[in-house]
Amino acid sequence: MDRRRPGQTGIVTPRKESDMAYILSGIFENKTTGAPICALALNSDAKSEDYSAFKLTDRPGHAGFTYRAKYGIYDYRGGGRSSYRETWGRVFAGAIAKKILKKVYGIDIIAYVNQVADIVAPIDPNKVTLKDVEASPTRCPHAACAKSMEALIEKAKVEGDSLGGVVGVVVKNMPVGLGEPVFDKLDADLFKALKSIHATKSVEIGMGADAATMKGSEHNDPFTSSKAGEIHPLTNKAGGVLGGISSGENLLLRVTFKPTATIKKPQVTVSVTGKKTVLEGAGRHDPCVLPRAVPTVEAMVALTLVDHYLRDHAYSDFVKR
Amino acid sequence: MDRRRPGQTGIVTPRKESDMAYILSGIFENKTTGAPICALALNSDAKSEDYSAFKLTDRPGHAGFTYRAKYGIYDYRGGGRSSYRETWGRVFAGAIAKKILKKVYGIDIIAYVNQVADIVAPIDPNKVTLKDVEASPTRCPHAACAKSMEALIEKAKVEGDSLGGVVGVVVKNMPVGLGEPVFDKLDADLFKALKSIHATKSVEIGMGADAATMKGSEHNDPFTSSKAGEIHPLTNKAGGVLGGISSGENLLLRVTFKPTATIKKPQVTVSVTGKKTVLEGAGRHDPCVLPRAVPTVEAMVALTLVDHYLRDHAYSDFVKR
Amino acid sequence: MDRRRPGQTGIVTPRKESDMAYILSGIFENKTTGAPICALALNSDAKSEDYSAFKLTDRPGHAGFTYRAKYGIYDYRGGGRSSYRETWGRVFAGAIAKKILKKVYGIDIIAYVNQVADIVAPIDPNKVTLKDVEASPTRCPHAACAKSMEALIEKAKVEGDSLGGVVGVVVKNMPVGLGEPVFDKLDADLFKALKSIHATKSVEIGMGADAATMKGSEHNDPFTSSKAGEIHPLTNKAGGVLGGISSGENLLLRVTFKPTATIKKPQVTVSVTGKKTVLEGAGRHDPCVLPRAVPTVEAMVALTLVDHYLRDHAYSDFVKR
Amino acid sequence: MDRRRPGQTGIVTPRKESDMAYILSGIFENKTTGAPICALALNSDAKSEDYSAFKLTDRPGHAGFTYRAKYGIYDYRGGGRSSYRETWGRVFAGAIAKKILKKVYGIDIIAYVNQVADIVAPIDPNKVTLKDVEASPTRCPHAACAKSMEALIEKAKVEGDSLGGVVGVVVKNMPVGLGEPVFDKLDADLFKALKSIHATKSVEIGMGADAATMKGSEHNDPFTSSKAGEIHPLTNKAGGVLGGISSGENLLLRVTFKPTATIKKPQVTVSVTGKKTVLEGAGRHDPCVLPRAVPTVEAMVALTLVDHYLRDHAYSDFVKR
Repeated sequence: MDRRRPGQTGIVTPRKESDMAYILSGIFENKTTGAPICALALNSDAKSEDYSAFKLTDRPGHAGFTYRAKYGIYDYRGGGRSSYRETWGRVFAGAIAKKILKKVYGIDIIAYVNQVADIVAPIDPNKVTLKDVEASPTRCPHAACAKSMEALIEKAKVEGDSLGGVVGVVVKNMPVGLGEPVFDKLDADLFKALKSIHATKSVEIGMGADAATMKGSEHNDPFTSSKAGEIHPLTNKAGGVLGGISSGENLLLRVTFKPTATIKKPQVTVSVTGKKTVLEGAGRHDPCVLPRAVPTVEAMVALTLVDHYLRDHAYSDFVKR
Repeated sequence: MDRRRPGQTGIVTPRKESDMAYILSGIFENKTTGAPICALALNSDAKSEDYSAFKLTDRPGHAGFTYRAKYGIYDYRGGGRSSYRETWGRVFAGAIAKKILKKVYGIDIIAYVNQVADIVAPIDPNKVTLKDVEASPTRCPHAACAKSMEALIEKAKVEGDSLGGVVGVVVKNMPVGLGEPVFDKLDADLFKALKSIHATKSVEIGMGADAATMKGSEHNDPFTSSKAGEIHPLTNKAGGVLGGISSGENLLLRVTFKPTATIKKPQVTVSVTGKKTVLEGAGRHDPCVLPRAVPTVEAMVALTLVDHYLRDHAYSDFVKR
Repeated sequence: MDRRRPGQTGIVTPRKESDMAYILSGIFENKTTGAPICALALNSDAKSEDYSAFKLTDRPGHAGFTYRAKYGIYDYRGGGRSSYRETWGRVFAGAIAKKILKKVYGIDIIAYVNQVADIVAPIDPNKVTLKDVEASPTRCPHAACAKSMEALIEKAKVEGDSLGGVVGVVVKNMPVGLGEPVFDKLDADLFKALKSIHATKSVEIGMGADAATMKGSEHNDPFTSSKAGEIHPLTNKAGGVLGGISSGENLLLRVTFKPTATIKKPQVTVSVTGKKTVLEGAGRHDPCVLPRAVPTVEAMVALTLVDHYLRDHAYSDFVKR
Repeated sequence: MDRRRPGQTGIVTPRKESDMAYILSGIFENKTTGAPICALALNSDAKSEDYSAFKLTDRPGHAGFTYRAKYGIYDYRGGGRSSYRETWGRVFAGAIAKKILKKVYGIDIIAYVNQVADIVAPIDPNKVTLKDVEASPTRCPHAACAKSMEALIEKAKVEGDSLGGVVGVVVKNMPVGLGEPVFDKLDADLFKALKSIHATKSVEIGMGADAATMKGSEHNDPFTSSKAGEIHPLTNKAGGVLGGISSGENLLLRVTFKPTATIKKPQVTVSVTGKKTVLEGAGRHDPCVLPRAVPTVEAMVALTLVDHYLRDHAYSDFVKR
């Protein structure tokens, strides 16, 4: 939760929202009871007046426009569910999901910032560690690139602008067999889960978009047999999933984030009544959401994997009898 | 259905499988009755012996490996649900979904081949027409590129290899308001639907991966007001969705397909018992699945939009009272 | 909510739990925003010590036994989700559902106590009014029977025992067409919803169990035509549903409640370790849950009808074009 | 399937519909592959002309009226999904569900006819065997009552009328722990599943409607401890479920069936255009559906239990670690 929190470093939103979770149900004597776990956070640093400009003018590139159209009403104070605050619950639930996955499979999920604007860090995802990720406020595990990214984000902040980038994620110690073969493929559900995070624009697995220019004989991944007799793909170009089902190799995914829509720079647009206007954001927003997106990406991957663990576990013992 | 059919041109699999649908239920006097529509196709050109090599050796990059691990059994004759034949039902259902969308919104869904291997066609998706797409067996609406792609696919076929590429899709006459604001965002569900198609490796919306290198002030899309007083985004960089809800602009998506896993070229791999072996595919497979993927992409988009139409329609009249 | 509240009269549990709902989300300027409505109640009259006897000995006929077996842990303080307190949320949500049904169809849902122990009130459900129901603390709309029931409940309270009975429910101004034809029949979903209320043992619709001894020629319900040309069943023996779909006639249902499991009378049983013991309930429990069950029954009917309204509304306009 | 088949004895519908199932998918070398099992039956004895009377006049007490209203179209030939033929699929799937339950828990599910019209057989459900049930065409395991029921059904057949009754069901060798504690209680799901069968009017568990007249001290069921130290309820008045979760005791349920709506006796009613008319059923219908309902009841119980087995199995190992 602390990794997602606003105000944690100088390059994210300076809002000092306490993210403390009050747990209202589901825990008794430090154990889950099977009842739903309800958690509540109270925002002690709300400044609704920061959002008053958005009462009559929707932010370009922002959900206010579509919310208003769909629901005929828009709670402009804070942005409602279109705010990044909504990810609080995802990260809370993801923390529990991670514990379950660690216990049943030994799974580790590590997301990291791979690119900010045009700075692309040369990273082997299979070697990324949580420690390296947390070594920089950017959450880029490549120290030199992290420095450059930080400088670039500081600059965007001063300019009142925002930056996009790419978050990568690797999942280690994956079991074979998670995922369903048709619509609920493991990677299909991961794509949905990751795309459901605010500001995402593309999702890739394995070679991703680069697969377009490869031949079958290059992209195919022959099997090999370990000394213990275990068969597995040699190079994992597929990124850990074959035919919608996990192959036991590391899961390798990438998510593109657009630059945040809410910026300080003046923007010429029209109000909800169609009047030409200049909008200047006054709120305390993220110049680059990627460092705070890292724990959200991990959470969504964890929740998807736990769902598939439960689903697979429902029948797999029986299937294998 | 004819656009998905094997054997339609020289650059797809030569299997002559009849795709004729026998409709067993749900239609009475040319109208739907509300009962499920059950359709059946009988394969008159099955050659199970083509698949006998896969009984003991899984194809590199193919689902056989994970199916075997998950279910402890694998129907190697044809590949079962991991075969591209599985998309028959998607295209059948998608045809009905398209009719509904056309009737309630006037929606048109057009997919097209945008890239094969390293040939990238310079296409403005907003101007693509079905006629241009169908003008070439490649389903690339750019005539010159289509020619080059065709030659490249013929070459891969001769080499016993396969090619990947990119399918683009544009949806015209979109309504405002489809999609849910948190997990079931319209684009999240589209990403899942498209990723659930065989051989896909990345999905993008709007500027997609290119959004990573843009600034907020560049990517943001100010609103403008039409003469009729309608407010809408000026440039549609978002690709038709804001905050998970359709903005009324054209939906713009891109899907990367890997080169098909099943190739004729010999591949050194190990059998299911771990024995080193050379696998040579004997089946009649697609050297490049993209031309046949086009109708499947359209179908999955149509099904996702109909689901959201039904969902939105359930409560929207009430919300707007 | 006040009709469900503990402590409302002398014949229900004397616990003074405030049922005040704090609404945390989903409402802005007195309108729903489309976001989930989250409501919270804080229990100001909890006496966990009342439940200490149940730490080591499960109440006969109570869920403690199965919760312990299923989850390996049991929060004995208050009974967790097996407590009748759990219905607070049902009644809260049901109040909103009733508003929607009133607005879209003019529907009225009235439940009432029809029987307590062996006192069966002769009631025509089609004539029951909310005013008559609320005229007595028993919520039996038949004044004389209500008096006898009240006396009987007082007696059970003194004896430390509990009583069962029957709640009837009538739904007026039903539309034709709610319900699905196979598994999700309207009455199937109503049976599930009503059976999900604590302490219920049977559910009936229309002639219910009495249908067993009727002939087809007696039970069948010929159609008649009104002056306005509307066709409808003459006698509504079916209770408002034909083939799983509402016929437009009044919905008529009955639910049997067992006597509450938690009583003060000593009971010889064994503890969770198998030791013979005498259990004496010390808590402040309902001698007869039926008066407080009435609003819960109404809520579950309302929620089921709203679900089917949304479902039917999703496609019915299209079907009828 | 043979127990559900029409034409099996003289007291059910004489239609000679072959119920032979053609299995189209999901089985390979006598094992399930994890793919859906699709089965098809072709009706070789359809006589659509038997249903021509229902083209313009709906049968009193039958679903034709509501289908027409909901869908604006009605396939009167055979009755579509409102026909008892629809249960073919339930019994097919139930047969597989029974096999799974037998394998994982040793569960036996036995339904039987307990009452036809006013003949109530004195039966201890815990002692009913499949052999006794199948000893009579009525499927009543009490020989003398079975004889009387048979005579009564023959008489109704001659009169062109129909009879109702009660089917009981006992499930032996139940595990502890199936069912969810709030909405998806095991008995709530069973009530829905049983009510979804055609012609059902009430469902009861344990003491059912009789619980209304019992006191808590009578209905409660103290626990006892077996020699092996296992704790269980002494008398199982609850019918095998406490708080929505199975207690390990026999499941005991009862379902009331109304007399079939389709009868030969002339009925005065109005046509779909409101014209007064006399309807005479010409089809080959069941004078009493109960003997054929027995396998359907078993199937719906089996399917519900398998659903809960999968659900419980998804997390129970983890919960108990």
